[in-house]
Amino acid sequence: MAYTTNGGNGEYSYSNNSSFQRGAADAAKELINEAIAEKLDIQNFSSSNTFRVTDLGCSVGPNTILAMQNIVDAVELKYQSQGHNTPEFQVFFNDNVSNDFNTLFTSLPPDRKYYAAAVPGSFYSRLFPNASLHFAFSSYALQCLSQVPKEVLDKSSSAWNKGRIHYSNASDKVVQSYAAQYAQDMECFLNARAQEVVYGGFMVIIIPGRPNGLPHSQAMVNMVGEILGSCLLDIAKKGIISEEKVDTFNLPTYFASPQEVEAIVERNGCFCLERMEILPQAIPSGNFSRGKVMSSQIRAGMEGMFKEHFGEEIIDELFDALHKKLDESSIFESGNGSNLFVLLNRMATV
Amino acid sequence: MAYTTNGGNGEYSYSNNSSFQRGAADAAKELINEAIAEKLDIQNFSSSNTFRVTDLGCSVGPNTILAMQNIVDAVELKYQSQGHNTPEFQVFFNDNVSNDFNTLFTSLPPDRKYYAAAVPGSFYSRLFPNASLHFAFSSYALQCLSQVPKEVLDKSSSAWNKGRIHYSNASDKVVQSYAAQYAQDMECFLNARAQEVVYGGFMVIIIPGRPNGLPHSQAMVNMVGEILGSCLLDIAKKGIISEEKVDTFNLPTYFASPQEVEAIVERNGCFCLERMEILPQAIPSGNFSRGKVMSSQIRAGMEGMFKEHFGEEIIDELFDALHKKLDESSIFESGNGSNLFVLLNRMATV
Repeated sequence: MAYTTNGGNGEYSYSNNSSFQRGAADAAKELINEAIAEKLDIQNFSSSNTFRVTDLGCSVGPNTILAMQNIVDAVELKYQSQGHNTPEFQVFFNDNVSNDFNTLFTSLPPDRKYYAAAVPGSFYSRLFPNASLHFAFSSYALQCLSQVPKEVLDKSSSAWNKGRIHYSNASDKVVQSYAAQYAQDMECFLNARAQEVVYGGFMVIIIPGRPNGLPHSQAMVNMVGEILGSCLLDIAKKGIISEEKVDTFNLPTYFASPQEVEAIVERNGCFCLERMEILPQAIPSGNFSRGKVMSSQIRAGMEGMFKEHFGEEIIDELFDALHKKLDESSIFESGNGSNLFVLLNRMATV
Repeated sequence: MAYTTNGGNGEYSYSNNSSFQRGAADAAKELINEAIAEKLDIQNFSSSNTFRVTDLGCSVGPNTILAMQNIVDAVELKYQSQGHNTPEFQVFFNDNVSNDFNTLFTSLPPDRKYYAAAVPGSFYSRLFPNASLHFAFSSYALQCLSQVPKEVLDKSSSAWNKGRIHYSNASDKVVQSYAAQYAQDMECFLNARAQEVVYGGFMVIIIPGRPNGLPHSQAMVNMVGEILGSCLLDIAKKGIISEEKVDTFNLPTYFASPQEVEAIVERNGCFCLERMEILPQAIPSGNFSRGKVMSSQIRAGMEGMFKEHFGEEIIDELFDALHKKLDESSIFESGNGSNLFVLLNRMATV
């Protein structure tokens, strides 16, 4: 159930609705610069005159373009500061096949310092040749599961998630199903990247998540999921969609804690966890409706998935309702909006 | 004046209007297989476990997908027949930024044996890192100039091409301008590829062209250009567009002879001309209008360029008129429809 952000440049395009994600990217920028300056060992790459970078789950920009530019600049600086010739850079923009790569290509800066390429396909499987990447980056993408865990949609399962569209406030069985799907997806992701990233190569992952010990229900992203579910049930109560339709829908996202990520990385064994940080909340504030901004961003990211399941007719109503309920809620004050920053180093296997 | 073939899958899409080009590709397939089996020295590539292929000017398929599959299969066979481990393959689909890569990506076969990537940009400049390609392929693309030669649109120049949209039957000055632009573009192309293709790497170029000594006016592609020009003048005579509008338009294409290509390759000096062949004509025949088929194919390839200059209003009329005039003409019998097959080997510079 790979889902794709909205393409183009319109009102609900991802291009024009990704400022929350940019907040996390800005906070991560300094950490990435530090990691490259202090920890990246470019001696590992001396046999290659090309430094290859990828953004896994890049969507359509502008965030991906800023992030890739920053990594290229920081690596270039590192080579120069150590008296090495600057390598050539090749940047691979990856996302699902249905991503709007055409729009992404038209927004590439003409004066970029790298050769650009796009790679279509799910990052839960192999995308690149063996040992061909030096730096893999993924921001706001790995919270998307490869699929909704089957049990939560299965009436005969004890993990059936009736009346809800997510695991927050659901039964333990539902939460466990989601956590297991996440662990399994991450294992696929790490195994694929372990083949593709050279020894000594870096991987940076930024995901919306939650601090250790925080109940799922107090993470802002999960609060939004709850409100979204209640909007759908309201529409069902009006008879516009059936309750059955809501029962057969669950969000394919999971928001992990540092402990969970650490356990998954250790169990996989191919990467060394160099650093993990909780990034500060980055909720835009100002003289505007934060509910509207967040509703539009969720629409840009997930509209396609809702259209496919519920039909196009309910989309405007759904996101209008979400906007209003978000503004009436206290989630921007009481919810925890943590993002996790994870820096991994591809270890040579012993 | 980079121009782009029609995207999508509609009536006038390139996807559904590229059978003439496929004829040339089929004829080339055997020559490519032979070249790989007999002449490709894979010892040159022993330091790389990835074999990188590109299609320069790939458009949206299906021809590019068939061509890339064929090259990958033939190289795989070569490795196996010499007892080497099969490398991994990475295929880069290149075309101008405005190409419909989204459609291309959705048509990639799921069971492909290669990692796919797209590279946006003009092949008259650098697209790839240094020494990163093992096999570059380009079919029905290098006849497109980077721009119309400036002089032929310049009223004050002795090479002004008044009343025509191409060099066929035009003055010597016009022909020389086009030939010079072609030589200059090819020099840019070869210089860029010389950086990107590893020593011993191959380049195959397929272009519509003409045998040595054949007057430009007897090449079928030029005859079509003449008829297209007369269709535009007919529309101008009706007052729908101005004659001035026709005078300021010229086709950015050039159809070379083997002698010309050979001279350009020798002057460049980075590639060895391993083989050049004139491929047999591949005009589909059967119980259908060849004028309609060819008109639709030209529309798929060039509609965007005509729209931009003349406006959308005349497009249907223009290509209907072209279809009828082609059927009334004798070009399918009397025109020479040669394609050139060129095999180049990247020489180590001495």
